[in-house]
Amino acid sequence: MQDKVINIKEKLSKFSEHWSPRVVAQMNDYQFKVVKIKGDFTWHDHKDTDEVFMVIDGKMRIDFRDGSVELSNGEMFVIPKGLEHKPFAEDECQVLLVEPCGVINTGESGGELTADNDVWV
Amino acid sequence: MQDKVINIKEKLSKFSEHWSPRVVAQMNDYQFKVVKIKGDFTWHDHKDTDEVFMVIDGKMRIDFRDGSVELSNGEMFVIPKGLEHKPFAEDECQVLLVEPCGVINTGESGGELTADNDVWV
Repeated sequence: MQDKVINIKEKLSKFSEHWSPRVVAQMNDYQFKVVKIKGDFTWHDHKDTDEVFMVIDGKMRIDFRDGSVELSNGEMFVIPKGLEHKPFAEDECQVLLVEPCGVINTGESGGELTADNDVWV
Repeated sequence: MQDKVINIKEKLSKFSEHWSPRVVAQMNDYQFKVVKIKGDFTWHDHKDTDEVFMVIDGKMRIDFRDGSVELSNGEMFVIPKGLEHKPFAEDECQVLLVEPCGVINTGESGGELTADNDVWV
């Protein structure tokens, strides 16, 4: 069973694209995804679900219409459903996301940063 | 909003009891819990849900009836619903659990290691 152990940093080492979440685990109908981010993402929300960001390595900021939060290694944040947000990282930041299966990274905002869903690494 | 950032290690520094999960965040109807473990836990399963273990600091083993897995820092494992398991750590290990609200740490096995549910830190 040892081959089912998921090493988060090892998974992150397997790709280099930014804003391209890769699924590493599924628990019931929720998925854990790793993603490398750099620069500004798209303003968006997720109408039907909360979303968790956990920083594995680096620093990131999440902007809201009325403020922002800064996260670094070992810190996590729960974005409430329906709340518009825009992730940002000055330098590359490695992040673990937790959210229900089927959530699209840009919500309903679309745009060129919309990534394929359910891509495993 | 910065006060809603959850620093996982800082949360773990706030208590010392073993096998006593503390909730640090809720996403929809799922909770993130930190727990310090040492020694042998109780054989148990969770009939209705998968469960995620993620090691924050230390090493642990999860025994199954037909094998075991070893986890260390930055590694995670999804325990399938209904699968009997017994966590173990020779030295104290700090762990993040993800599971639906209401899950009891000993499943239906009971015993003295059964912890209060929904205790936040």
